[in-house]
Amino acid sequence: MKNAIPTPALLVDLPAMERNINRMAEHFAARPCKLRPHFKAHKTPEIARRQLAAGSCIGLTCATVAEAEVVSLLTDDVLVANEIVDIDQCERLARLAVRVKVRVAVDSQAGVSRVAEAAVVNGVTIGMLVDLDVGQHRCGVSPGAEALALARLVDAASGVALHGVMGYGGHLQPVRNRGERESRTREAMIPLIATAELLRSSGLPCEVVSGGGTGTYDIDGDLPGITEVQAGSYVLMDSDYGELDLPFEQALSVLGTVVSRKGERCVTDCGHKTMTMDHGLPLVKGLPGASVAALNDEHAIVTVPLDCELVVGDRLELLPSHIDPTINLHDAIFAMDGDSLVSVWPIVARGYADERAALD
Amino acid sequence: MKNAIPTPALLVDLPAMERNINRMAEHFAARPCKLRPHFKAHKTPEIARRQLAAGSCIGLTCATVAEAEVVSLLTDDVLVANEIVDIDQCERLARLAVRVKVRVAVDSQAGVSRVAEAAVVNGVTIGMLVDLDVGQHRCGVSPGAEALALARLVDAASGVALHGVMGYGGHLQPVRNRGERESRTREAMIPLIATAELLRSSGLPCEVVSGGGTGTYDIDGDLPGITEVQAGSYVLMDSDYGELDLPFEQALSVLGTVVSRKGERCVTDCGHKTMTMDHGLPLVKGLPGASVAALNDEHAIVTVPLDCELVVGDRLELLPSHIDPTINLHDAIFAMDGDSLVSVWPIVARGYADERAALD
Repeated sequence: MKNAIPTPALLVDLPAMERNINRMAEHFAARPCKLRPHFKAHKTPEIARRQLAAGSCIGLTCATVAEAEVVSLLTDDVLVANEIVDIDQCERLARLAVRVKVRVAVDSQAGVSRVAEAAVVNGVTIGMLVDLDVGQHRCGVSPGAEALALARLVDAASGVALHGVMGYGGHLQPVRNRGERESRTREAMIPLIATAELLRSSGLPCEVVSGGGTGTYDIDGDLPGITEVQAGSYVLMDSDYGELDLPFEQALSVLGTVVSRKGERCVTDCGHKTMTMDHGLPLVKGLPGASVAALNDEHAIVTVPLDCELVVGDRLELLPSHIDPTINLHDAIFAMDGDSLVSVWPIVARGYADERAALD
Repeated sequence: MKNAIPTPALLVDLPAMERNINRMAEHFAARPCKLRPHFKAHKTPEIARRQLAAGSCIGLTCATVAEAEVVSLLTDDVLVANEIVDIDQCERLARLAVRVKVRVAVDSQAGVSRVAEAAVVNGVTIGMLVDLDVGQHRCGVSPGAEALALARLVDAASGVALHGVMGYGGHLQPVRNRGERESRTREAMIPLIATAELLRSSGLPCEVVSGGGTGTYDIDGDLPGITEVQAGSYVLMDSDYGELDLPFEQALSVLGTVVSRKGERCVTDCGHKTMTMDHGLPLVKGLPGASVAALNDEHAIVTVPLDCELVVGDRLELLPSHIDPTINLHDAIFAMDGDSLVSVWPIVARGYADERAALD
């Protein structure tokens, strides 16, 4: 019973999630390009297991070494789609490569040598994807000559093996207009594909061309030359991606309890310690005319119609605007089928602990 | 050694924190009004222990029942300065009251009866503070007649005892101009004090008048009638409170590793999964001319002068803009004395788990 769940709590609509997983798997089933779902979106092993079981997946993507440590228990093909340079993290990455195939993004000489050093010490080989800046202007080298130079460095180093290139168009994912999203994605990804061809024509290996996300999965995935798509959010969605014309359903909500009500103002116990505001305020689920006026640390302030019957003690669900950092705030997801609680899934590799650090 | 700490990591500057704790304790030492530090700011038992040890404290404040469960191991006088109405949480609150003095804020008839019911079942008495809206327009009843009516309800109920009133002027804490902050705080808190007098003159008990925060601690604390101040952020501060003219030092930072550098753009591994942006972007510590351009999920994008010598693998510290939700993202704080790691303190009662929930 939904009303018996202590709040605040993160809920997943299990049938909607299953439909999302199956729709994405079906999309890639008949295509040469495959899916490598991004674990950073949900950090939930049970969800990743279901993504893999649905097919069309060639492994999992993650953003941190802590995530990779979990993901390596679920698949034998792990991509860390992020630069790893911290010496401790390079060491942990190398230890994973003893058990499973590990690939990591790289955009600097220091990145190559730090990962390579840990790999050599552990007697393993770590695959590398040269990370290209496809217009997001965060990490990544420029397509073309700069990428080729770094690829040669990777190819020449011991302990690492050049497997290909990747480019994440984070800036393209939220483009609302479908036509504009298509044309800008093609424009951004063609230099990635061209760089892969440049590497091959220069005698370098380049079996992987990785990119894409939930907003562009069916654009990247149909560009000849892209071998895998790193989509994550599609599995549960959020109100921000909900603005796009995607065939995926909102399956994530935060359940709160009304703790105060005065006229049109209704306060629930789920503030921005339970869901983030970086993509805007959440939406109210299933209550026409209601909207979130503000999120404070511990409270959501919801404006409701005066004749709304919500009273102190009632439950209210909000739809978060950004899935990844919202799930990162919780320890567990309550998997629901309608009003019935089906299971409680642990969320892992969240937060940043390190009590392993030696005291000096 | 700071460089040996795996990143991203939350650091506390221990000598600065100790100075903050002592300054606040000294301020209240000679005053009738006392300090009840707010645990929600840091959720770190070791910090709360040091706050209590420094003196001038009459207990601790917290925002959630999970925090209260921890706080009850540190002090025998616990205030939950928040409405608690979830039935499971009322039950947990009542179980705490078996061991320690527990008070809770209330602003509704349903709130009174839910807490009272759990108290009666557990054979305990829970203290109640009628929560007044002093202008923040979140929770709380209106000062005067509405508060008196609710106070009478509390006084008449079994299992709960009327202990007084509280009012949190959250909207006043960040007012930049000292004169304006003083006058608006007085204006907001006088109805709280007047309501306390109304309760007493109506034959009701009202020993506690609780309010205040880091921004107004020395204004509220000097208003005759206020008995305790609930300040929290002063202990570690943040860049938002740093804009005020407060005698407290920035003692909290997030340590990151540079994972990518291209010209003026420097990317570190501490994004908004490691510090929140609800009070703005963080500041860069100790690097003149550098500023944070954006926080993404996993990355901080820092603009540095072209001649800045930071390279991939170097460390960089950022000063978060909001302490409470930032600490809520971490499992541990690294306590530093300069470059030396002194201890690693666990952060508790963060996130929202509940695997205790029964499957139906």
